[in-house]
Order: sequence, then structure tokens, then C-alpha cells
Amino acid sequence: MRPFKRKSDCPIHFAIERFGDAWTLLIIRDLMFFGRSTYGEFLYAGEGIATNILADRLERLEVGGIVSKGPDPERPSRSRYALTQQGIDLLPIMLDMIAWSGEYDPGTAVPPQFVERLKTDRVAVEAEIRERLVSSGQFLIAPDAP
Amino acid sequence: MRPFKRKSDCPIHFAIERFGDAWTLLIIRDLMFFGRSTYGEFLYAGEGIATNILADRLERLEVGGIVSKGPDPERPSRSRYALTQQGIDLLPIMLDMIAWSGEYDPGTAVPPQFVERLKTDRVAVEAEIRERLVSSGQFLIAPDAP
Repeated sequence: MRPFKRKSDCPIHFAIERFGDAWTLLIIRDLMFFGRSTYGEFLYAGEGIATNILADRLERLEVGGIVSKGPDPERPSRSRYALTQQGIDLLPIMLDMIAWSGEYDPGTAVPPQFVERLKTDRVAVEAEIRERLVSSGQFLIAPDAP
Repeated sequence: MRPFKRKSDCPIHFAIERFGDAWTLLIIRDLMFFGRSTYGEFLYAGEGIATNILADRLERLEVGGIVSKGPDPERPSRSRYALTQQGIDLLPIMLDMIAWSGEYDPGTAVPPQFVERLKTDRVAVEAEIRERLVSSGQFLIAPDAP
């Protein structure tokens, strides 16, 4: 894993360093919207991530405090990942990305009703998803899990 | 320049393809917040972008419809770049990134007052910057400029 090298105090630079990489964003998407939470689930998510890239990005996200890792309650030899509070706080950025693509990608998979809800009822949409993420994260990984 | 290869109708994937790359995001930052608009200004912005990467990313942004290029009114042999409407519509994403880094980077350059304003007065902040971007963009490059 590449260590974080502080080159700048620019907030956009900081954000890029922590999560602004194509694969990192796809892992955050998987955790946030698709309920994927194991290495295998990320690996087979569809974009064909290589195992070494996946391992690197998961470690970066963990070191950066965006995801936490703990034993899977159903099979303790396996790890499960969850978004931390910092990770859940990326929700507005992800929703803005969805809204932007919903607007500009004619072939988007985003249902038009969801694009519309993001425009007219953003606060409620965000609160709903946040609530779901907070409760599922707490269920999967206790705050003090290794 | 790598052409856009449609692999997915996922909105996060689409956004990554169009602007979700470290250098691309820094160029958008320069256009949006620092009034940089020429090749030379991007080149010397501080992060040490290589000339071939800069040329590639500017072309990607132009082909993707996020920036437009036109002759500099002050020196027509030189090009100036401006954000298109699509590019200006990335503002919410950029502001969310700034807010997130303002929250989680103890060494951030974001003034605490701005982080606070983003929390309490987000709509007005966004409207102010958007207004400035729309007017400066129109000033620099006419809608039908080559």
C-alpha cells in the first residue's frame, strides 16, 4: 500500500488522496448502495477489479479511516467491511455524482424517479440512506472490533 | 487520449469515467475556485502535473463536455478553458468534497468560517459561486466559440 504522502493542505487534494480513485469510489459505491461487504463480493462486483488492486484499495480505505474491518459474525474466519462515520459522510458526494450522471448520461441506470426525488426531496433521501447505513454498519461491526 | 469506453450504465462509473481522476479533479478545482484557465496556469498550479498528462486530461474534459476551449480574447493565439454548464454542475460535488475534508483533515486549508457556512448556508454559497462561474464563463468564451 502506498502511504499517504502529505503534499498539500488543499481540501480537494485531501479528498482525492483518501478516496478519489476509480476503484476506491466503486468499493464505496458497493458498500453504500449494494450491501456488498466482503472481499469476494467486491471482487465479483462486475467491473473486473484485480485482486492486488482490491487488496490495496481496501487497505487504503481502512488506513484512511473510511472503512472498518471486522470478523464476519456468520463466519469468523472471513472479514466484513463497513463504512465508518467518515465513510458514511461521503454520502452527499455519492448522491451528487448520481444526480449529475442521471442528468447527463442518456443511458444511465438511475431510475428517473430517483433523479427527480434527488432534486425535490434531497434531505429526506439522504436521511433515509444514512439511517440504513448507520444501522447496518452497527449490526455488522461493533465499534471496538479489531 | 483514451476514448470513453462504455462498460456500465452505473452512474458512479459514468462520473468516474468523465471526471473521477485525480488530475481531472484538480483541473476542475483550478477552473472553479482559482480562476485558472490557461494551459500554463494549470501547469504551474503547484501539484507538478506533467505536460502529457495535462494535455490528455484537458482533452478528455473537452470531449466529455465538461470544459470548452476558445481563443483568449487578450491573446488569440492562446487558448482559454472554461467550465460548460455540465462542468458548473459539478459544483455540489466539489463543495461536498471541501466540506468533507474540512471536517476530517486537521491540517486543512479550508477556513473554519467557510466550513461553517457550508453547513448553515449551503444553498446561498452554491448560488453565489454558480453565479460567478456562469458570468465569468460567458465572458471568456462565447457559447458558439470553436
